[in-house]
Amino acid sequence: MAHLLSTSCSLKIASGCKLNSRPLTHDLVAFPTSLAPQTSKFPFGMLVPQGGKTHRISPVHATTIPTNREAANQPSSDFYQSSSGPSKPQRVMVIGGDGYCGWATALHLSNKGYEVAIVDSLIRHLFDHQLGIDSLTPIASIHDRIRCWKSITGKTIELFIGDICDFEFLSETFKSFEPDAVVHFGEQRSAPYSMIDRSRAVFTQNNNVIGTLNVLFAIKEFSEHCHLVKLGTMGEYGTPNIDIEEGYITITHNGRTDTLPYPKQASSFYHLSKVHDSNNIAFTCKAWGIRATDLNQGVVYGVKTDETVMHEELYNRLDYDGVFGTALNRFCIQAAVGHPLTVYGKGGQTRGYLDIRDTVQCVELAIANPAKHGEFRVFNQFTEQFSVNQLAALVTKAGEKLGLHVQTISVPNPRVEAEEHYYNAKRTKLIELGLKPHYLSDSLLDSLLNFAIKFKDRVDTKQIMPNVSWRKIGVKTKTVTTT
Amino acid sequence: MAHLLSTSCSLKIASGCKLNSRPLTHDLVAFPTSLAPQTSKFPFGMLVPQGGKTHRISPVHATTIPTNREAANQPSSDFYQSSSGPSKPQRVMVIGGDGYCGWATALHLSNKGYEVAIVDSLIRHLFDHQLGIDSLTPIASIHDRIRCWKSITGKTIELFIGDICDFEFLSETFKSFEPDAVVHFGEQRSAPYSMIDRSRAVFTQNNNVIGTLNVLFAIKEFSEHCHLVKLGTMGEYGTPNIDIEEGYITITHNGRTDTLPYPKQASSFYHLSKVHDSNNIAFTCKAWGIRATDLNQGVVYGVKTDETVMHEELYNRLDYDGVFGTALNRFCIQAAVGHPLTVYGKGGQTRGYLDIRDTVQCVELAIANPAKHGEFRVFNQFTEQFSVNQLAALVTKAGEKLGLHVQTISVPNPRVEAEEHYYNAKRTKLIELGLKPHYLSDSLLDSLLNFAIKFKDRVDTKQIMPNVSWRKIGVKTKTVTTT
Repeated sequence: MAHLLSTSCSLKIASGCKLNSRPLTHDLVAFPTSLAPQTSKFPFGMLVPQGGKTHRISPVHATTIPTNREAANQPSSDFYQSSSGPSKPQRVMVIGGDGYCGWATALHLSNKGYEVAIVDSLIRHLFDHQLGIDSLTPIASIHDRIRCWKSITGKTIELFIGDICDFEFLSETFKSFEPDAVVHFGEQRSAPYSMIDRSRAVFTQNNNVIGTLNVLFAIKEFSEHCHLVKLGTMGEYGTPNIDIEEGYITITHNGRTDTLPYPKQASSFYHLSKVHDSNNIAFTCKAWGIRATDLNQGVVYGVKTDETVMHEELYNRLDYDGVFGTALNRFCIQAAVGHPLTVYGKGGQTRGYLDIRDTVQCVELAIANPAKHGEFRVFNQFTEQFSVNQLAALVTKAGEKLGLHVQTISVPNPRVEAEEHYYNAKRTKLIELGLKPHYLSDSLLDSLLNFAIKFKDRVDTKQIMPNVSWRKIGVKTKTVTTT
Repeated sequence: MAHLLSTSCSLKIASGCKLNSRPLTHDLVAFPTSLAPQTSKFPFGMLVPQGGKTHRISPVHATTIPTNREAANQPSSDFYQSSSGPSKPQRVMVIGGDGYCGWATALHLSNKGYEVAIVDSLIRHLFDHQLGIDSLTPIASIHDRIRCWKSITGKTIELFIGDICDFEFLSETFKSFEPDAVVHFGEQRSAPYSMIDRSRAVFTQNNNVIGTLNVLFAIKEFSEHCHLVKLGTMGEYGTPNIDIEEGYITITHNGRTDTLPYPKQASSFYHLSKVHDSNNIAFTCKAWGIRATDLNQGVVYGVKTDETVMHEELYNRLDYDGVFGTALNRFCIQAAVGHPLTVYGKGGQTRGYLDIRDTVQCVELAIANPAKHGEFRVFNQFTEQFSVNQLAALVTKAGEKLGLHVQTISVPNPRVEAEEHYYNAKRTKLIELGLKPHYLSDSLLDSLLNFAIKFKDRVDTKQIMPNVSWRKIGVKTKTVTTT
């Protein structure tokens, strides 16, 4: 499928939100005070773009856009500590910056004063068309979103559209943008997608592994000081019967001791592709002195960050379908439309979860505190553990508070996984760097449910049930037919 | 590079060795009695092909081709124990059956009474042309070798020429041949090759990972009972400071215990591709019930097996160059041509080694004692451990016995690896299955040295030195220029 993406382009986006667009929160059914961003009252008239000129302003640690730009221009010491000079903000390339986490991260980093470029093939939109699925949230094109961001904040985000598996394209983006850090979300990120059929399995592994290899080669060739922040997944570890450490484990065996990569037991071709990436990256850190942080991320929930709530044209996508939807987001949307919550099998599957606001926070912490040259650093990026049954109970309770009648059904597990197991994963390294977690609370669930209710008319209930079986994957390319 | 291989064909080979060919051993400088195959005196006139008809004869445990074919047709009980029926020998597909180990294995299995098909893209020959290298041994085309084998033994080996990354081709081979076991050597197998440049690194990982994925899908789709015997490498483990177990390690951690995949620390894009394969295969065993044996093979030395010595047209290749040559073989050839033995760095690098006669023996043991459905079994396939310095000393001593003046030089290590380290790898599982090792002895070294001397005029000394640096690999495609 790589040939589909052989054309590429770098775009400079004209500024300005669309005329019919409006700030985010005004028509929410309910918006808990605890989540209402201060920016929701930001006077729109002040967000005039500043002639396309890039303002390298200081990081904004508050959630409010500074109205006094002069004051905001004072650099903060912590921001520049790992940058190449006191007067130059770090340049961060966000690969996969069009997606659910990538877009939120790009905005967050831009808001914090980093110079940001998004690199994305946009192929995910092709998957949506091919599978007949869509985001719960209406999402503007990446071009319009970047334009809107510029209009609101005066900040420029560069956009490079192309496939990182095309090394010529990737080389040009590196030479043009000269990144100090690369945040790499640019992978096929759905386990079910990778298990649809042989061609999707092959695509997933080829796309993810070769794309990451190309990023490693680009860093070595063009930007050796560049810090790679790679999105891995907690799913790489599987569900061992011992505590999960952060990337490494010290083993004493037959009287000798060594600290070795933590054993991986991934359970889909997607999860495996991330394991392959981790192994490849670790090798290049050792052989070439690459500096890398592998963020083994848990399941992300929520949709709103300080930045995406600034304007509805800045919304990121939110998936609820059987292929790209993940547990908690999908449950909230199911509750909103009166669909039973679909628990796979016994529901004892326990995983790490985190709020998308913590995703963007963690990535920034990793960038601001980079790995050393030659270091392959692994952080487990999640804040709480829940079993699927616990999540269903939480959503049921929160739904009832909003007057929803929430039911739960057990559906045959399409995956091959333990449904009752020990699970205890360490998550201290990002806390040590300063992560302030947003824990899953009633108010957050209310917010997510309200968000789901707001867009419930966009839900295609035919897409909710799991339709990809780990065991039944075949060699014929699966096509979607209208029924 | 996959497009280079998009054409494929299945060939039936006419029988008969070439007129100018002759039995192997007659012109060897010296041939120790211990290695002289009984078949060297096999009367050539008795090897008339039997009309192209496939004879499904019993396994031949002796090294002599039976002259009484009727007697040989009695099936032996141990051979059929894992076959689908008492009257039908196992059908074994040897992917990569044109290569150094693959060809020897195909012959061995054919000799043992298995129905054998070779699947190979022959791309290795293209690599030779592109890099300007060649086998020490003059090797006949695969077509001629198969024809010769048929002429000598009456046994047919089917040949399917094509790329297993082309799933349509692979499907046809599976449907046509209906294998009971697949022995998968069909990968780019050189660490230095994978470190030449970006395109070779990407080729290696894509070719190896996708090819193996396709094999797994083909087994699932067309031949679920089929046992996959996959060639891995001891290099997957790296050099941990604890004992290396066979695939798994039992870890007690924070008061809990689990048996987990042994941590891997591969140190080239080639070795990493094998780690990726192992992880992918383990998953399919769990998810689909695939039965698989991963043979983590050490460094293979030697060239002669009971079968390849039957006729010089049956020779397999022997590499001595800086890209495809491996330690012991290369040392013998260096000694033969008066080139100093090239020890990389300090020479304390310790690895597992085995005679190619044990390679073919191990593969047959794995096939004859297959993994259970859903089992991912890992065997460490080597017989002895040596450091590079130990090998150099052994070759020096053996060379002196033959009147050679052998020098050793230390060259800068082109690899990134520990040059002094602990190394103790377990190797009991194949012994338990019945492996009778051929240990490296003076007589074997004599034989290998004599073989090298026999062909020393074919050695291109420009190809001996390492010319691929782990650290200097770049993004531009390296080309070989005539100097």
